Amino acid sequence: MIEFAQFGAGRIGQIHAGNLARNPGARLRYVVDVDPKAAERLAERYGAKATDRETAMRDPSVGAVVIASSTDTHADLAIAAANAGKAIFCEKPIDLSLARVDACLKAVQEAGVPMLVGFNRRFDPSFKSLHERLQAGEIGAVEQVIVTSRDPGLPPQEYLKVSGGQFRDMTIHDFDMARWLLGEEPVEVFATGSVLVDQRVEEVGDTDSVMVVMRTSGGRLAHINNSRRAVYGYDQRIEVLGSKGMLTAANRVPTTVERAGGDAVTRDKPLYFFLERYAEAYAAEMAHFIEAVNAGEKPSVGARDGRQALVLAEAAVKSMQTGAAVKLV
Amino acid sequence: MIEFAQFGAGRIGQIHAGNLARNPGARLRYVVDVDPKAAERLAERYGAKATDRETAMRDPSVGAVVIASSTDTHADLAIAAANAGKAIFCEKPIDLSLARVDACLKAVQEAGVPMLVGFNRRFDPSFKSLHERLQAGEIGAVEQVIVTSRDPGLPPQEYLKVSGGQFRDMTIHDFDMARWLLGEEPVEVFATGSVLVDQRVEEVGDTDSVMVVMRTSGGRLAHINNSRRAVYGYDQRIEVLGSKGMLTAANRVPTTVERAGGDAVTRDKPLYFFLERYAEAYAAEMAHFIEAVNAGEKPSVGARDGRQALVLAEAAVKSMQTGAAVKLV
Amino acid sequence: MIEFAQFGAGRIGQIHAGNLARNPGARLRYVVDVDPKAAERLAERYGAKATDRETAMRDPSVGAVVIASSTDTHADLAIAAANAGKAIFCEKPIDLSLARVDACLKAVQEAGVPMLVGFNRRFDPSFKSLHERLQAGEIGAVEQVIVTSRDPGLPPQEYLKVSGGQFRDMTIHDFDMARWLLGEEPVEVFATGSVLVDQRVEEVGDTDSVMVVMRTSGGRLAHINNSRRAVYGYDQRIEVLGSKGMLTAANRVPTTVERAGGDAVTRDKPLYFFLERYAEAYAAEMAHFIEAVNAGEKPSVGARDGRQALVLAEAAVKSMQTGAAVKLV
Amino acid sequence: MIEFAQFGAGRIGQIHAGNLARNPGARLRYVVDVDPKAAERLAERYGAKATDRETAMRDPSVGAVVIASSTDTHADLAIAAANAGKAIFCEKPIDLSLARVDACLKAVQEAGVPMLVGFNRRFDPSFKSLHERLQAGEIGAVEQVIVTSRDPGLPPQEYLKVSGGQFRDMTIHDFDMARWLLGEEPVEVFATGSVLVDQRVEEVGDTDSVMVVMRTSGGRLAHINNSRRAVYGYDQRIEVLGSKGMLTAANRVPTTVERAGGDAVTRDKPLYFFLERYAEAYAAEMAHFIEAVNAGEKPSVGARDGRQALVLAEAAVKSMQTGAAVKLV
Repeated sequence: MIEFAQFGAGRIGQIHAGNLARNPGARLRYVVDVDPKAAERLAERYGAKATDRETAMRDPSVGAVVIASSTDTHADLAIAAANAGKAIFCEKPIDLSLARVDACLKAVQEAGVPMLVGFNRRFDPSFKSLHERLQAGEIGAVEQVIVTSRDPGLPPQEYLKVSGGQFRDMTIHDFDMARWLLGEEPVEVFATGSVLVDQRVEEVGDTDSVMVVMRTSGGRLAHINNSRRAVYGYDQRIEVLGSKGMLTAANRVPTTVERAGGDAVTRDKPLYFFLERYAEAYAAEMAHFIEAVNAGEKPSVGARDGRQALVLAEAAVKSMQTGAAVKLV
Repeated sequence: MIEFAQFGAGRIGQIHAGNLARNPGARLRYVVDVDPKAAERLAERYGAKATDRETAMRDPSVGAVVIASSTDTHADLAIAAANAGKAIFCEKPIDLSLARVDACLKAVQEAGVPMLVGFNRRFDPSFKSLHERLQAGEIGAVEQVIVTSRDPGLPPQEYLKVSGGQFRDMTIHDFDMARWLLGEEPVEVFATGSVLVDQRVEEVGDTDSVMVVMRTSGGRLAHINNSRRAVYGYDQRIEVLGSKGMLTAANRVPTTVERAGGDAVTRDKPLYFFLERYAEAYAAEMAHFIEAVNAGEKPSVGARDGRQALVLAEAAVKSMQTGAAVKLV
Repeated sequence: MIEFAQFGAGRIGQIHAGNLARNPGARLRYVVDVDPKAAERLAERYGAKATDRETAMRDPSVGAVVIASSTDTHADLAIAAANAGKAIFCEKPIDLSLARVDACLKAVQEAGVPMLVGFNRRFDPSFKSLHERLQAGEIGAVEQVIVTSRDPGLPPQEYLKVSGGQFRDMTIHDFDMARWLLGEEPVEVFATGSVLVDQRVEEVGDTDSVMVVMRTSGGRLAHINNSRRAVYGYDQRIEVLGSKGMLTAANRVPTTVERAGGDAVTRDKPLYFFLERYAEAYAAEMAHFIEAVNAGEKPSVGARDGRQALVLAEAAVKSMQTGAAVKLV
Repeated sequence: MIEFAQFGAGRIGQIHAGNLARNPGARLRYVVDVDPKAAERLAERYGAKATDRETAMRDPSVGAVVIASSTDTHADLAIAAANAGKAIFCEKPIDLSLARVDACLKAVQEAGVPMLVGFNRRFDPSFKSLHERLQAGEIGAVEQVIVTSRDPGLPPQEYLKVSGGQFRDMTIHDFDMARWLLGEEPVEVFATGSVLVDQRVEEVGDTDSVMVVMRTSGGRLAHINNSRRAVYGYDQRIEVLGSKGMLTAANRVPTTVERAGGDAVTRDKPLYFFLERYAEAYAAEMAHFIEAVNAGEKPSVGARDGRQALVLAEAAVKSMQTGAAVKLV
């Protein structure tokens, strides 16, 4: 039974706290948030205490932290937690700066604490099953990976300003997905993008529609496409072509109801957004972390995965600026 | 906040207790079971007390009961609960004897307590959505209803002996589903059946494969097919043909993964059995009951629905014996 | 190379003539129709001659006839063709009277000529493949057969008056399908029906919506449902449950296009009616007949199949009238 | 009624000749092939004459030619046909050299003859329907196009040697598809590729697995992925994301049969290769050409489309060599 301190009581923080609380291997002891009322509300709901960062970090009964606060605080909190010897569950991205990510990784490594970076999609039942079947050799050697990832709609302008750009904020999940499925590190990244959804995105110097192609050392190919707007809902699909076949994972739907009418046959559009689509994934991710920490094992998706996804995002930014593929060592 | 006493700590009892415990509008106070250890284990898990029937029924702080014990105890417990003025959540069937069901209904009516009979399928998100869209007129007037309902495998011989027969034990759910979808009471029932799955079913004088056709006063038609064995898993589908189209609800699957191979394209078979398929339905059913009781309203599926499904089952038994359709008043 | 005389130049006659003409193993020599202009138009299109019945029947170079004229002429023409020693391709039904069907069968048997009865659905690529896989044991022993068969809309009132009733006119195809899939003869037939689509159907003493349940000697069960109106198009599906799995064949669609929109995901409704859905089946049926005749073999679906389907239709009529299942020897 | 001379009596030539012969608006007069016996066999089958190139080109009764001979003869034949004033149906590619394509276009333009380049996929019922619905505004403005195109297996080494490379030989179809769907000309092309299927491809300096990303002047994005081997059959899918939704067209299958078994649910893999998948498209393409020529109208896919697809292929070759996106004016 690990005691947790959680930083961040916002939307995603509430998800993690709930999953923590329902898990018999864990107990939520502290909630810390810049908004003390939010911290109190969440703490109360799960029998925890709202407190400040110092108290939470110093308490030796706290074995693990959940970092679900704003992105710019992730690295600091992770370093502090590492120094305090606590296991770390950190929302992605670790940081928008590679230098700070590396500092964080160093602290974690020196402290020898387990760290999970919140690439929740790896825990989606469909994606997880696909990955396992890939590993089991069901389609032979991987040749091509296609990742489709589109949000239902644009985030607020304020969010866009501090998001770090589409590649670091949105595509980063897909970079992780592609790495995970390719089974080899990409050594070449080409990316391009446009503003097609909303001209306000241009005002903040960002894109809302991007396409990426990557190549691994062994010649495996990956494609990612992203859009900030799919009016039909959260579009999250993966496809892997191998020497012996293809594995695909489609979107999930609220119900299996279909209507055959005089005009067409209609069925449900995909689940609305990440809270709906990845509800099971968030629970499984937290369960995995708790299990790993309790067993003294490394979580399956760690700090280095967080770093590598950022490396690919940086390469994509550079590729889009130069119009050439960026080589990675 | 209603306090509950639950009777029955078996498989389905554990489901209900869990859903109760997670619901902020309810608290599990007592668990009663013929096996005191089972009662204690379940009670402890949710902060309740194991006790005996009398204590639970007499305690005025108990506002509602869950009856999830063996079928032969349902009617007695429901009558006792009604007499004690408690709201009743009763697993189906109320009883295998229509006379006892009627006695139970009388007690409930006289006590004026709310009663929900556990036709969980009405709360399945897909079936519920289909029903709502039917009610909303999406396919005009109902003309034909087809209910497919097949278990993954035969229950133990001991169960079969006391089950009341396939119509009362298994088809009863589908009779309820058909009534609910038809929107009119069936007035004619034809049924036939065979032993095709396992000859041991014949030893207990039962069938394992049945087909039913029903007709309502307005001429609407319904078909039900059942099998005690579908090797591909729990097969639970509904289809409604109306004057303006057709609504269908298909099986649910664990993942959306598909594999395209040299021989064929394969996808997941349906979820294994009722605990998997109807997990959400059980939670929604309990939530509905708690909400209705807290609001002083009648649950959407009540004692009379439990009775009518049994009336149809009885008619099916008689039809199979006589080879003729049985008319209902 | 067989020379053909074809009787009937209407809608289905044009289909058969076209398939004949495209087949290198056959040549269309004569077309006969009550409307000489229709006969001429069709004959000219395929390099044949319009003629009268006597000429066509007497010409020794004619090896085979296609009977695609009105139902009431089928039996006479088939008997005449049998007596003239010609192979017979006869549209279903052979006749609406069992006595006349039997007379026809006798003539055919005595003449020793091959006869195919136009149960075109057996030649549909999907249904044929399903049947072959069934025969190959892919799902073990057959337990349940479900046949769904709905027309897109009501035929004209004039047609209904002479159709012989829904069971003999429409369900007859499904009786054949069920027999073919069951692999055993039905020994018990229950049927019921209603007028739900259009009250004018009642005026001619017919139904537009029916359900049938059948049982074979070995206890296998079959269900058929029919409607004269499915606004979403021609609904033609089959499902077979076996001891080792289930085989289904779904509707066919014009295109594979899907649209994901803000409200739902939509795809094509089924092909409109039999000319579209069974275009390939009609071609395959004719090819099979030509091949069989050229090879001196019996067609796979013969006169007796035509008779047995009518026997089941008669039983259904009687069952609907009496409200009891009708036993067949 | 146009009289045709056809050059080429190989596999694709036989397809075109058959479609021609079945079309009431056309007649096949001559067949020319380097193998006179092949020409004779094909000519005889459709009541035409085998002859030499000069005779066919000089005959004033010949109004149109089909060029289905080997790629290196396309441009010469097209120029000769243009000079002889004949309408031209030319298999893709016009030529592997842009200079020769331009010479050909000049001759066609000066002669003022209609020319169709054989991008058969535009005539596939599903792709055509998708394109029409796109044009009709069903998903608003196009934002992203994804073209998946994989062959079932590697062609012979001899073919690969003269194919012009994967981009010019295989992707050229997808470049056309992407242009057609984007509705704007690509101005930037990035491409990369690998040898993953068979090392013999490397011997001829080619790739067997490629990915392309393109960008139009308006910022629309397109992705193409190709493989020379998909063990599950010919994989031909398109997807278009627009501001108001997504349109997709999936693979077509031989039958709609599904089997639910103890392990999984299986359905048919896609149709095997282009002859099966595009049978309807080839017929529709020829019908469109005949109709356009008879009506004195320009075919919907012409010489310039053939040229632009080659321009994109050339850009892809260059991009793969340089590692940078290639800009087009």
